[in-house]
Amino acid sequence: MSPTKLERLDKSKAVLLVVDHQVGLFQVVRDYQPDEYKNNILAHAGLGKVFGLPTILTTSAQDGPNGPLPHEILEMHPDAPLIKRNGEVNAWDNAEFREAVKATGRKQVILAGIVTDVCTAFLALSLIEEGYTVFANAEASGAASRRIADDANARMRDAGVHVVSMFAIGCDLMRDWRNTPGALEMFPFYDKYFSAYGMVARGHEAAVKSGQLQPGEPSP
Amino acid sequence: MSPTKLERLDKSKAVLLVVDHQVGLFQVVRDYQPDEYKNNILAHAGLGKVFGLPTILTTSAQDGPNGPLPHEILEMHPDAPLIKRNGEVNAWDNAEFREAVKATGRKQVILAGIVTDVCTAFLALSLIEEGYTVFANAEASGAASRRIADDANARMRDAGVHVVSMFAIGCDLMRDWRNTPGALEMFPFYDKYFSAYGMVARGHEAAVKSGQLQPGEPSP
Amino acid sequence: MSPTKLERLDKSKAVLLVVDHQVGLFQVVRDYQPDEYKNNILAHAGLGKVFGLPTILTTSAQDGPNGPLPHEILEMHPDAPLIKRNGEVNAWDNAEFREAVKATGRKQVILAGIVTDVCTAFLALSLIEEGYTVFANAEASGAASRRIADDANARMRDAGVHVVSMFAIGCDLMRDWRNTPGALEMFPFYDKYFSAYGMVARGHEAAVKSGQLQPGEPSP
Amino acid sequence: MSPTKLERLDKSKAVLLVVDHQVGLFQVVRDYQPDEYKNNILAHAGLGKVFGLPTILTTSAQDGPNGPLPHEILEMHPDAPLIKRNGEVNAWDNAEFREAVKATGRKQVILAGIVTDVCTAFLALSLIEEGYTVFANAEASGAASRRIADDANARMRDAGVHVVSMFAIGCDLMRDWRNTPGALEMFPFYDKYFSAYGMVARGHEAAVKSGQLQPGEPSP
Amino acid sequence: MSPTKLERLDKSKAVLLVVDHQVGLFQVVRDYQPDEYKNNILAHAGLGKVFGLPTILTTSAQDGPNGPLPHEILEMHPDAPLIKRNGEVNAWDNAEFREAVKATGRKQVILAGIVTDVCTAFLALSLIEEGYTVFANAEASGAASRRIADDANARMRDAGVHVVSMFAIGCDLMRDWRNTPGALEMFPFYDKYFSAYGMVARGHEAAVKSGQLQPGEPSP
Amino acid sequence: MSPTKLERLDKSKAVLLVVDHQVGLFQVVRDYQPDEYKNNILAHAGLGKVFGLPTILTTSAQDGPNGPLPHEILEMHPDAPLIKRNGEVNAWDNAEFREAVKATGRKQVILAGIVTDVCTAFLALSLIEEGYTVFANAEASGAASRRIADDANARMRDAGVHVVSMFAIGCDLMRDWRNTPGALEMFPFYDKYFSAYGMVARGHEAAVKSGQLQPGEPSP
Amino acid sequence: MSPTKLERLDKSKAVLLVVDHQVGLFQVVRDYQPDEYKNNILAHAGLGKVFGLPTILTTSAQDGPNGPLPHEILEMHPDAPLIKRNGEVNAWDNAEFREAVKATGRKQVILAGIVTDVCTAFLALSLIEEGYTVFANAEASGAASRRIADDANARMRDAGVHVVSMFAIGCDLMRDWRNTPGALEMFPFYDKYFSAYGMVARGHEAAVKSGQLQPGEPSP
Amino acid sequence: MSPTKLERLDKSKAVLLVVDHQVGLFQVVRDYQPDEYKNNILAHAGLGKVFGLPTILTTSAQDGPNGPLPHEILEMHPDAPLIKRNGEVNAWDNAEFREAVKATGRKQVILAGIVTDVCTAFLALSLIEEGYTVFANAEASGAASRRIADDANARMRDAGVHVVSMFAIGCDLMRDWRNTPGALEMFPFYDKYFSAYGMVARGHEAAVKSGQLQPGEPSP
Repeated sequence: MSPTKLERLDKSKAVLLVVDHQVGLFQVVRDYQPDEYKNNILAHAGLGKVFGLPTILTTSAQDGPNGPLPHEILEMHPDAPLIKRNGEVNAWDNAEFREAVKATGRKQVILAGIVTDVCTAFLALSLIEEGYTVFANAEASGAASRRIADDANARMRDAGVHVVSMFAIGCDLMRDWRNTPGALEMFPFYDKYFSAYGMVARGHEAAVKSGQLQPGEPSP
Repeated sequence: MSPTKLERLDKSKAVLLVVDHQVGLFQVVRDYQPDEYKNNILAHAGLGKVFGLPTILTTSAQDGPNGPLPHEILEMHPDAPLIKRNGEVNAWDNAEFREAVKATGRKQVILAGIVTDVCTAFLALSLIEEGYTVFANAEASGAASRRIADDANARMRDAGVHVVSMFAIGCDLMRDWRNTPGALEMFPFYDKYFSAYGMVARGHEAAVKSGQLQPGEPSP
Repeated sequence: MSPTKLERLDKSKAVLLVVDHQVGLFQVVRDYQPDEYKNNILAHAGLGKVFGLPTILTTSAQDGPNGPLPHEILEMHPDAPLIKRNGEVNAWDNAEFREAVKATGRKQVILAGIVTDVCTAFLALSLIEEGYTVFANAEASGAASRRIADDANARMRDAGVHVVSMFAIGCDLMRDWRNTPGALEMFPFYDKYFSAYGMVARGHEAAVKSGQLQPGEPSP
Repeated sequence: MSPTKLERLDKSKAVLLVVDHQVGLFQVVRDYQPDEYKNNILAHAGLGKVFGLPTILTTSAQDGPNGPLPHEILEMHPDAPLIKRNGEVNAWDNAEFREAVKATGRKQVILAGIVTDVCTAFLALSLIEEGYTVFANAEASGAASRRIADDANARMRDAGVHVVSMFAIGCDLMRDWRNTPGALEMFPFYDKYFSAYGMVARGHEAAVKSGQLQPGEPSP
Repeated sequence: MSPTKLERLDKSKAVLLVVDHQVGLFQVVRDYQPDEYKNNILAHAGLGKVFGLPTILTTSAQDGPNGPLPHEILEMHPDAPLIKRNGEVNAWDNAEFREAVKATGRKQVILAGIVTDVCTAFLALSLIEEGYTVFANAEASGAASRRIADDANARMRDAGVHVVSMFAIGCDLMRDWRNTPGALEMFPFYDKYFSAYGMVARGHEAAVKSGQLQPGEPSP
Repeated sequence: MSPTKLERLDKSKAVLLVVDHQVGLFQVVRDYQPDEYKNNILAHAGLGKVFGLPTILTTSAQDGPNGPLPHEILEMHPDAPLIKRNGEVNAWDNAEFREAVKATGRKQVILAGIVTDVCTAFLALSLIEEGYTVFANAEASGAASRRIADDANARMRDAGVHVVSMFAIGCDLMRDWRNTPGALEMFPFYDKYFSAYGMVARGHEAAVKSGQLQPGEPSP
Repeated sequence: MSPTKLERLDKSKAVLLVVDHQVGLFQVVRDYQPDEYKNNILAHAGLGKVFGLPTILTTSAQDGPNGPLPHEILEMHPDAPLIKRNGEVNAWDNAEFREAVKATGRKQVILAGIVTDVCTAFLALSLIEEGYTVFANAEASGAASRRIADDANARMRDAGVHVVSMFAIGCDLMRDWRNTPGALEMFPFYDKYFSAYGMVARGHEAAVKSGQLQPGEPSP
Repeated sequence: MSPTKLERLDKSKAVLLVVDHQVGLFQVVRDYQPDEYKNNILAHAGLGKVFGLPTILTTSAQDGPNGPLPHEILEMHPDAPLIKRNGEVNAWDNAEFREAVKATGRKQVILAGIVTDVCTAFLALSLIEEGYTVFANAEASGAASRRIADDANARMRDAGVHVVSMFAIGCDLMRDWRNTPGALEMFPFYDKYFSAYGMVARGHEAAVKSGQLQPGEPSP
């Protein structure tokens, strides 16, 4: 059986995990430009919010150098469980975390973490072993180099993890622009976190409003 | 069974899909230089024309920011069905599109779309699930980054999709330069869409015509 | 005389120009990742706000494909003059714009625009000719390729333009962390627009608060 | 005196040179993707046509391996002088070429050639020596590597050559979108040769025509 | 069965192999910057030391151009067997080496070598064939190009080898920061070999000691 | 079963194929610097010579733009069959070629060709289907872009092809530096085609001859 | 006068400045791989030690997020003045720092700092203005991106700063391998900080000691 | 005065310098692929031979780790003076070398060396100071990184050195393909050292010989 045959994300079956997106660990991430990466981890947390997914936050030794989660994420998910691991590298080794995941009753897991090769990969592989379907948001996991990230993603892929983009997760959860959430909720979301697409929409809106062709523009 | 063992393209069994190559979505594509990418999507549509393949066009919410298909593609395929999806992200979720594909009776699908990780990948995976053999033209699918494209192509590959170049599709459909289409049809095609090869042929033609060696040129 | 000998920015002598950062033109920018670039142009406009600099906005044919400025910039500078050029490519060719710049009485110009090789460079060269000292914020000017940007920046540099980073502008205007604006104003500014540095400050703050060394951490 | 102080292009004072854009030499160009580069050299020749500039074509030993000019260029300029150099590397060493340039009476020279470090640079430096103002279209000159191109462009820049993009040349010649040529002529030109911008215009036109906002699009 | 399903490293079951990290062969490595790579091979050897793993050193024809191992590695492992192969390319072909590995009784092998495509890959594939679980430290294997390294790693991955980072190996062996080795041993280790993380810890320590917030730093 | 489990090359079981390394097609190769690539294809042919492998040459339409093989290859293998295909893209479709391969009685095939995604991949996949073990020399196959090469190599890998470096092939065939061919034959071979390693050997030889330490050199 | 005509470094006239190489600021540096960059800043400080240059250390707000200097640097220069700036961005604005530099009586300044575009560039430009000859060690200055570093180095170069490598500084100070410091001191220095060269020396030394040619090695 | 105004190379006025292209130093070069770089240094030496230029070879401490020159270079120039410097880094500091250069009576110097930032740059700057016109062959100088090479080339350029490609030197010395050396001598030279161009000529020659158009090739 092919490991990554189509299994679609279903917003009623999915849980979102935010793994060790801590301000100290943020510095170790070198496979994305920092402002871009900050955008990406906020987008990851935002997916939980816009789709109303049960969301679980976890940190590793957050009173030490790793530091706390960015306040933006905490503010987005004030009621989400925040599992502070005091030693376990692999979040699945922490009983409280396991219980929190199981308590959601969800079998599709969307996750991202710092660093890709450890916090994301170890947990993803454990989840696969436990029978979950795992979607790793590659844009919100960070590693010490692009090369390390590529190797870690390949490792996860070989184990059956779906290594996907933020937009693929958003579109898979939405399925149809006429759904709720649909265009009404997702255009503002992408305007915030996916600027290339957001600016296309802004340009479209301005064009509709100004409503006039410029000389020289292509005619149909 | 190895998923990508040789299955050759057969011009009598293949259908060509043009998926969401819309002028608004064009801007989101950042893994190719824009002029190169425009060339690539016209080449994709052109494969349908030069080999006489049944061709199906589809768009996503084309009255909104995504915009229409480039007029060059519409002009190349004036009689092809153009399925305007009003909400479905995955074209396979649209009944009209499914019917159009099935109506061709073809079991080999050549496709490309914007963006690779959503429009191309979702459809490709659905087609695999339905039993089609799928050839994704990697040069005519565009993504928000090279990295996202690589991950999406790997995902498709893992599911059994053949991720291939335009030239590989053209050569697989032609098989022999003496066929029809063969050298007579394909050299002009490559002259238009594959400049490196086209210029080799132009240089050869000029040499044959001028017919004289320059001093210093290698002698046999 | 060396063209780029030290002339320091002086917040009482500088004016900030926002040139053609329009939502349609945004798509043409390919030398920065889009989310990073959006951050950069907001940071550019933000410099005017945090240092209380006179700020002038201008657009090129904004009712056409180029589109309006992002609303974030307009909201940051509700009282700034917005000069809508209806045809002039080089903003300096527009009398209203020239008057707006001259009216500030400032002789140091900080500017950025889309695209670097046209909107930024043409204006910068004209300003040099008029005797202004020009600081081009290279992070907030965008071009169709990195290579075009490099050539355009070299051209400006050869004419005596200071091609600098956003952080260099911010630090040159501030001069001393004890000034106003100083640490109190600039740390929040960098937290927003310069994530690598912002996260260092967040980590420091968390460390001071949690106040305890972890076993294994280096001891002095 | 700074060598690259603003001197604006003036369509009544400029001549366009097409230097050794031959089909054999095309293969040596490795600093651009081939389809992109073919687009770039056609755009270069097209600038002469759209602005009605006197245009001079020249080739080096075109009956040998270097081959003829692409037929698209010849068809664009059927009446332009085509100076076939039989040996001179530097076109300025050829009396017929010198005469052709001088006969135009123009003092601003726009040029591009293959290869950048030889055909473009040698001629550009000679023209500078003769008192011409020289604009080298960096996108239409090609070299055996990006690095060689960078070094050659730096060399030209140091001698006072303006190393610029195609768009910078086009905008400098046009100056105002209301001129002739202006928006009416240049939008179709950019639609052909500057796809990123062309697609922005196509999207704008489609938006104006479809004339309706999508749910979720940003509101003013 | 998926080849890379989670099998965790266990410090009581693992052996570390240092393969042909010789000073002559070091020059052939072109997929890492040399100072970075020297750091990486010392880190590889260091993993054996900090976790007390049985460690085996081997060299290929070390009296010839390949040269000896760096003295730092020899000094780190004064009692480790050093198997000098006089001809066998694949270390597994050498009986003495096979015996040394078998004598450890360990079934998990952590290895790295120069060059990735030969010394690492040949041995890794042989070990897989012999039933070992193999973890290839991708950061401490070097190849003549990045591309060759990628192909070699893909080849190993396809055969079931875990291609992983140094940090993934360290964290997998440690499992919990409260273990021994744990934070106390690993922070100094990472301070030496993983500077990005080491500097985060140094910054944290300094913050705790200086113990005061700066004006402008974010408040909770 | 894992497709790329260790099967070692055996010089008594292997045949070498040189596929379409023609001087016209050479220009289409853009994933290697040209001088490097010329070196790589000569090294490929040279492997046949230094190991005495049966070698088969084939070309596609060599009287047309594709051109003949480089004379260096023809001179290296004066007695090798040269199968001139007049139309078949996939060499396996040509009966004469199939017979030539079968006539060798060899079941391990080492091959490389231009272009990777067509000439190499089509043939490699056909050979896999016929039961051969296939080693693709990735350094001697060339494609129109690095990206196309990567996709083609992944496709071959998924079908069970060993995608390997020239050095991996050479070392696998040699196995032990004391064999024949061994150090005596392979050092000169690598001196010619693998300069980084060749220069290590030259430096070693010079050191042995000059035989004296320099002040400051490390002492044991 | 050309600004960077040869002025040689003279170890009796040079002073070394270590500017803001602080552990917090270290994280902002993204134009070098972190382990490589740590090596580079230690090498910079080491130049002062090996050549016995007067050395001045300075930090910016080191009790805050920027943090202290790495202990390795402090240990290398226990008697060097350490000027703690409490607010001045440009070290030259600090009277104590100016006095420390002037007190050395040296007119050639070797410097590096974090970040290149601010701490290095501002100081370098001030020093030029004061009449110093300035050598900026480009390998030991770090910036938020390679692009920012390039722009900052160009800005310094335009003002007459010598932007040079660590090896160029070392060789310029040494001048002759027979001097003191010369080979005896510099080989161990490069062995530590310039691994590519260090390993060449180690290989040479091993060759001289083992003293025998391998079969197949080139003969003179 | 602009430092790099056109001064043409004149084969009767030029001398060629081969500086420290030693087999040990070869390993330190990391800004070119090794096989490509070996080609480039042989081409550099070859220019002296094909144009009959006086050629001077020099080495630095060649009995130590730096090693001798490649035998290919020595064989190309059996009668050229080989100045063995026993300590001087800057060759101009060596009286014997200075005399050798002066003895040629030539005032145009073509040079290249390892490493660019030291051996090439120091000598080039000294030569400029002595009044020579200097052409640095950027392809035959190697540095520890591309970035170091770029900085070193910029430094030389700022001092008035012409930093040029091998092809630019060859064409400048030849001037006209009808000269001697001209096409007859230079095509074989480029066939050897400039493969992209060499293969164009081979393709042309084959076309003239085979003399027939293929169906589908462009017609005039």
